[in-house]
Amino acid sequence: MTAYDDDNIFAKILRGEIPSFKVYEDDATYCFMDIMPRSDGHCLVIPKTPCRNILDASPEQLAACMATVKKVANAAKAAFDADGITLQQFSEAAGGQEVFHLHFHIHPRHEGVRMRPAGTMGDMDLIKGHAEAISAALN
Amino acid sequence: MTAYDDDNIFAKILRGEIPSFKVYEDDATYCFMDIMPRSDGHCLVIPKTPCRNILDASPEQLAACMATVKKVANAAKAAFDADGITLQQFSEAAGGQEVFHLHFHIHPRHEGVRMRPAGTMGDMDLIKGHAEAISAALN
Repeated sequence: MTAYDDDNIFAKILRGEIPSFKVYEDDATYCFMDIMPRSDGHCLVIPKTPCRNILDASPEQLAACMATVKKVANAAKAAFDADGITLQQFSEAAGGQEVFHLHFHIHPRHEGVRMRPAGTMGDMDLIKGHAEAISAALN
Repeated sequence: MTAYDDDNIFAKILRGEIPSFKVYEDDATYCFMDIMPRSDGHCLVIPKTPCRNILDASPEQLAACMATVKKVANAAKAAFDADGITLQQFSEAAGGQEVFHLHFHIHPRHEGVRMRPAGTMGDMDLIKGHAEAISAALN
């Protein structure tokens, strides 16, 4: 497998070189908003340590991410009064991966509402508000 | 949240009341083929203990499932000479969930090949062969 590239966008976000809308963090994980949201509240959970995707992640990185995914999923469901959650994780380009630092997509879902197509930049003020709503529901 | 229903199909599979094409198991998890495969090698990882989905799963259940997901994902990628993996997990009907026992969908993916639409029963002989191929790659 291709080696981890320390210049990927999420590595830069973790180093504070690129801004992000933070939702939550702990010692091992960071959660922030996807700026091309396919659902209102679409956010990402990543480990703070390097790994490319699920194929090379350690059991510890995966466990830490999933503990955060569970917390944030419940908070996002509450914040958006959602009916369910869709979780996605893409490994390698053929699997759908675009940024090569392990990440889990959390989508709050409502009955009868489809996810939006990928690749459209969202409204930054709206996304900032969504980050704050999920954060508030976590506390 | 709705309580766990002990009569769901995956609980019956775990109790041996319904057959399944086994790929892998350990003390905490079971992996078997989806019989409506959206990709060749489409398989499911579930915890052996009850939980409905990601919203009520324990950190231990999630960690155990993800350790198995990683193992099986690598084996499935090798078995199908795949280029990547797509992982999905659906919580509640609005999130895409149809069987209410926590499960993770593993899809081997190839460049330029889309996943098939959901809901079509697969060829059982073919699926049995796919289970054996992934199992062999695990060993």
